[in-house]
Amino acid sequence: MNSFGRIFRLSIFGESHGVAVGVTVDGCPAGIPLTVEDFLPDLKRRKAGAAGTTPRKEDDIPEIISGLFNGHTTGAPITILFRNNNTQSKDYEAIRNTPRPGHADFVLDKKYNGYNDYRGGGHSSGRLTLALVTAGVIAKKIIAPVQPTARLIEAGGDTDIEAAIDKAVEMQDSIGGIIECTAQGLPIGWGEPFFDSVESVISHLVFSIPAVKGIEFGSGFAGSKSTGSQNNDAILDENGTTKTNNAGGINGGITNGNELVFRVAIKPTSSTPQQQQTWNTQSQSVEAFTVKGRHDLCIALRAPVVVEAACAIALADLMMVSNALKL
Amino acid sequence: MNSFGRIFRLSIFGESHGVAVGVTVDGCPAGIPLTVEDFLPDLKRRKAGAAGTTPRKEDDIPEIISGLFNGHTTGAPITILFRNNNTQSKDYEAIRNTPRPGHADFVLDKKYNGYNDYRGGGHSSGRLTLALVTAGVIAKKIIAPVQPTARLIEAGGDTDIEAAIDKAVEMQDSIGGIIECTAQGLPIGWGEPFFDSVESVISHLVFSIPAVKGIEFGSGFAGSKSTGSQNNDAILDENGTTKTNNAGGINGGITNGNELVFRVAIKPTSSTPQQQQTWNTQSQSVEAFTVKGRHDLCIALRAPVVVEAACAIALADLMMVSNALKL
Amino acid sequence: MNSFGRIFRLSIFGESHGVAVGVTVDGCPAGIPLTVEDFLPDLKRRKAGAAGTTPRKEDDIPEIISGLFNGHTTGAPITILFRNNNTQSKDYEAIRNTPRPGHADFVLDKKYNGYNDYRGGGHSSGRLTLALVTAGVIAKKIIAPVQPTARLIEAGGDTDIEAAIDKAVEMQDSIGGIIECTAQGLPIGWGEPFFDSVESVISHLVFSIPAVKGIEFGSGFAGSKSTGSQNNDAILDENGTTKTNNAGGINGGITNGNELVFRVAIKPTSSTPQQQQTWNTQSQSVEAFTVKGRHDLCIALRAPVVVEAACAIALADLMMVSNALKL
Amino acid sequence: MNSFGRIFRLSIFGESHGVAVGVTVDGCPAGIPLTVEDFLPDLKRRKAGAAGTTPRKEDDIPEIISGLFNGHTTGAPITILFRNNNTQSKDYEAIRNTPRPGHADFVLDKKYNGYNDYRGGGHSSGRLTLALVTAGVIAKKIIAPVQPTARLIEAGGDTDIEAAIDKAVEMQDSIGGIIECTAQGLPIGWGEPFFDSVESVISHLVFSIPAVKGIEFGSGFAGSKSTGSQNNDAILDENGTTKTNNAGGINGGITNGNELVFRVAIKPTSSTPQQQQTWNTQSQSVEAFTVKGRHDLCIALRAPVVVEAACAIALADLMMVSNALKL
Repeated sequence: MNSFGRIFRLSIFGESHGVAVGVTVDGCPAGIPLTVEDFLPDLKRRKAGAAGTTPRKEDDIPEIISGLFNGHTTGAPITILFRNNNTQSKDYEAIRNTPRPGHADFVLDKKYNGYNDYRGGGHSSGRLTLALVTAGVIAKKIIAPVQPTARLIEAGGDTDIEAAIDKAVEMQDSIGGIIECTAQGLPIGWGEPFFDSVESVISHLVFSIPAVKGIEFGSGFAGSKSTGSQNNDAILDENGTTKTNNAGGINGGITNGNELVFRVAIKPTSSTPQQQQTWNTQSQSVEAFTVKGRHDLCIALRAPVVVEAACAIALADLMMVSNALKL
Repeated sequence: MNSFGRIFRLSIFGESHGVAVGVTVDGCPAGIPLTVEDFLPDLKRRKAGAAGTTPRKEDDIPEIISGLFNGHTTGAPITILFRNNNTQSKDYEAIRNTPRPGHADFVLDKKYNGYNDYRGGGHSSGRLTLALVTAGVIAKKIIAPVQPTARLIEAGGDTDIEAAIDKAVEMQDSIGGIIECTAQGLPIGWGEPFFDSVESVISHLVFSIPAVKGIEFGSGFAGSKSTGSQNNDAILDENGTTKTNNAGGINGGITNGNELVFRVAIKPTSSTPQQQQTWNTQSQSVEAFTVKGRHDLCIALRAPVVVEAACAIALADLMMVSNALKL
Repeated sequence: MNSFGRIFRLSIFGESHGVAVGVTVDGCPAGIPLTVEDFLPDLKRRKAGAAGTTPRKEDDIPEIISGLFNGHTTGAPITILFRNNNTQSKDYEAIRNTPRPGHADFVLDKKYNGYNDYRGGGHSSGRLTLALVTAGVIAKKIIAPVQPTARLIEAGGDTDIEAAIDKAVEMQDSIGGIIECTAQGLPIGWGEPFFDSVESVISHLVFSIPAVKGIEFGSGFAGSKSTGSQNNDAILDENGTTKTNNAGGINGGITNGNELVFRVAIKPTSSTPQQQQTWNTQSQSVEAFTVKGRHDLCIALRAPVVVEAACAIALADLMMVSNALKL
Repeated sequence: MNSFGRIFRLSIFGESHGVAVGVTVDGCPAGIPLTVEDFLPDLKRRKAGAAGTTPRKEDDIPEIISGLFNGHTTGAPITILFRNNNTQSKDYEAIRNTPRPGHADFVLDKKYNGYNDYRGGGHSSGRLTLALVTAGVIAKKIIAPVQPTARLIEAGGDTDIEAAIDKAVEMQDSIGGIIECTAQGLPIGWGEPFFDSVESVISHLVFSIPAVKGIEFGSGFAGSKSTGSQNNDAILDENGTTKTNNAGGINGGITNGNELVFRVAIKPTSSTPQQQQTWNTQSQSVEAFTVKGRHDLCIALRAPVVVEAACAIALADLMMVSNALKL
């Protein structure tokens, strides 16, 4: 469903080529300074423009509908809209009968009996991540001074990101990447046994981001190949500082006061310029197919701020729940 | 918190060295045949006994408290207990002041101001996975004929599992592993945008399992190194059958009718026989430390049935929600 | 918090004198025909205009932001806005220091440390019932042919409603009333033990409507004065038809196939033209006070459609949950 | 469904004539002193024994399964069982084909296709209120020094309760009653707009109690017959003390610091000794019928402690959510 969170809750809506996309954030305490300008830096980071990103340009100006008064949050739900002013729906009409490989076109059509808004992925479009980024800005204010930071550490299997993008442009094929997100200054004790472990809540949100197909905390998959004496983090002082950080800052699902570390696998953009094969639902045969429209060669370039937002949102809810459970 | 699910809901409770551990399953339809015997095969798979597993022996006989009548589910909550009859709490008293590296001892003590039941990990013990396995048996009946299957595909970095265990026993150090879970026969359309993607719900549950530190769907992390034209799955027929299955059976967070595939990274058992360092809260210094008690050298050996249960529980809830949203 | 429902979920936002009020409906099945016009009749019923209602006139044209495509619901969240185009905020500035008796001014100021949008009740305004009515229109489509009907059966203690209004206008004092809501054609079996009884879910929503202070189902308070032999409803046939309907169509929290009947007590409009006493937070003394602004003498006149909407929303969620729990 | 609450959560299970009934309380802070003895006074108040109550005697000794350690709550879920040791299931076998008027027998049979445990009402039995009372004891510790107090203020329409019971015994017919619950010392600000108003959350829980058919807050139904100038509560000082308390301590769904007051209508016990009519599902005809088994003539006598528990549970969750939403 389209809402998430126990106390700090967000609810998202909208379609890529409809009127707007937007988000409602409920459970935000009153009295937090908040202006339109606060959203702009993260929205800009999410924007297209660089090499390897789509030429579709959206203003992405947040339109604050509710929950703000005199420059502060009021305790009431904060709803923010982003109008879609640069849609080219006709691009999508033509390909309706040829579901794009890697996209949700085919499953959405089946799931909703053809009633879904298929234009540009509709409600499943990456454009919905605007809503996450927006809620993330609010979440970051709540968890301050904790400050998640995400960055692309690998693209197309290469840690030299620029070179990877150049290569993708050259071969005219899309690529994926790996994003690492860290956060320092977390107190000990966020996260709840059993089902609201920090890993559970973060991964739930992160896998809501389109194109994410993997996540690992601390030493993750590599750690599974090591031994207990290698992978355990020796505790060094009364604050719980550890010698290594293979746990990624989490023990038993609960923050241990060390740096939070996780990595996210982003698949190559499904809309590659390369010719592909797909089922044509009209001709009832497999056909060669080239995706049209304006797309990112490496969506992973724009995803760090989204992962960061997901992390902040998860931490905000975990923090508020954790605080609520104290006497 | 200790409950999970929207329609098919489970709530777990209990401590490793308390009276019992248990689970309540709510939202199970009435009329499903269910007996004590139905639980035994999966419970046995979770049991210790093999090389590399703990010598602690528990009968693990499910005691059905409610929700069954005349051999069928009644529609009311099903509560099942497992008495703890083989606890050696004194093992744990001695190490109270030396939080075990890799375990949650340290964070639980801080989070709960020392009030947590610290014996054997208390409520955060791996023994709580009994509750998951039990709920998993019920979930499997609901999603039948879909049948998740999980197996250990790598231990200590080695795909020859027996060799890996032998080596761990020889070096007297614990090891981790990678579990792969698959499920065939899923219909198209389970999973909900935006926050209840199949990946989100499965990962939420899987990261509730102690020792899990990573998860990837389909081609996962490896896929992030490939290109769109390599990673996209060409659609071949009107049922959505794809040529490859790099998506792991999920597009846009929704099942696409192909095989569900995901892999889970299990860290090496934190309780290694090797000497480690930790903070002694009484002497206020870092001390050499060797974990006592009976432990698994490779907890990953016992984890496949738990991962399988988590998968089944997630799918049961996803299925029921998906059905609820149809007219 | 500002969302409600397990499957059919609504989330509301907005303030009386802000940009807009609105609602997001999630969990609405795809394929339901829905147009702007569908909302107008119920919105009109909620409108002011008659004797005893406020002269504030709002266009109340629903602005559909998302979730509709080609005249049908898409399965994605439906967000609908109502712009506030007739606000006179200066009316409220003057009375900021004199919290209006019967209103939430005083408690909101304390709860939110003065950060709440106090203009016209802000987020706690009766204007938010627009969101309920809007969601109610969608809910009614889902539960059709079940059709809740609510009407004012008593105003100011008088069953002659017109006479009651005339008297209120004459004495220039506000009055309350009692609304009865009924629904026929419900199947047997909606409602869930233990906490999602039909009465629980309906009352939860109904008490979200400002000014509601009581609810009773079937014979309600009067029934508590009778005897079991008088109050029990004899079952007359295999469909569960009963001789009387003192249960109001609900046994054990579950619909029994007979008519659903409940009554709601609406308090007199807090904004009476009569002079009252309140605490002046500036002068720190009790002062005589007359409420300004444009208000309803009998808000109960406009409330039936809101109660009807709350009933429809509750039934839609109960129906969908009930269906989800069947094999 | 069988769980309730956002932070302070309870989950109930069990059947009247099964193994046990029980409750799991999740979201209880660690460090609260709690012993078996703490439960006994409220459990005793709920017990049968007085004139007008059932002769069925149960020991009702709470069996604490989890969540307690060294006499304090641990922060983990608290599960408590009550074994059923005095069941006479054969009483119920005979009447299986004659659904008892006023009970849920008929609807449960239809809802669950005959799979429900019908003995003594099964999971819908009043015996499940043991679970509420138990959770209420814990909730009262959380909200202390706030202390809800409920008492029967009317039985069979008579405020002289003893006389009412005598009369019921004499005429051998069951009666209902009205319970008033109050609580002093509440701070200003518990309760959340829009859907978690104090009235919404309390009524949701109170209508989960079998036999409850009405609730009103403050002046309630009587208030709906008065005028605004009569019903409004003048604010008298900076603490929000009001001259009257027609609001029952709640404005805009939020506690205003004055006494919380609500009244609950309990229907006459459905199991009256009087002969009634019901549908015989075997003979397919309406038949005279007399209920067998051991029953309360006035279940309302035993209900105040249950209403009090529901109030405490609701307030505990409202308090914790309200605290969570503060910076």
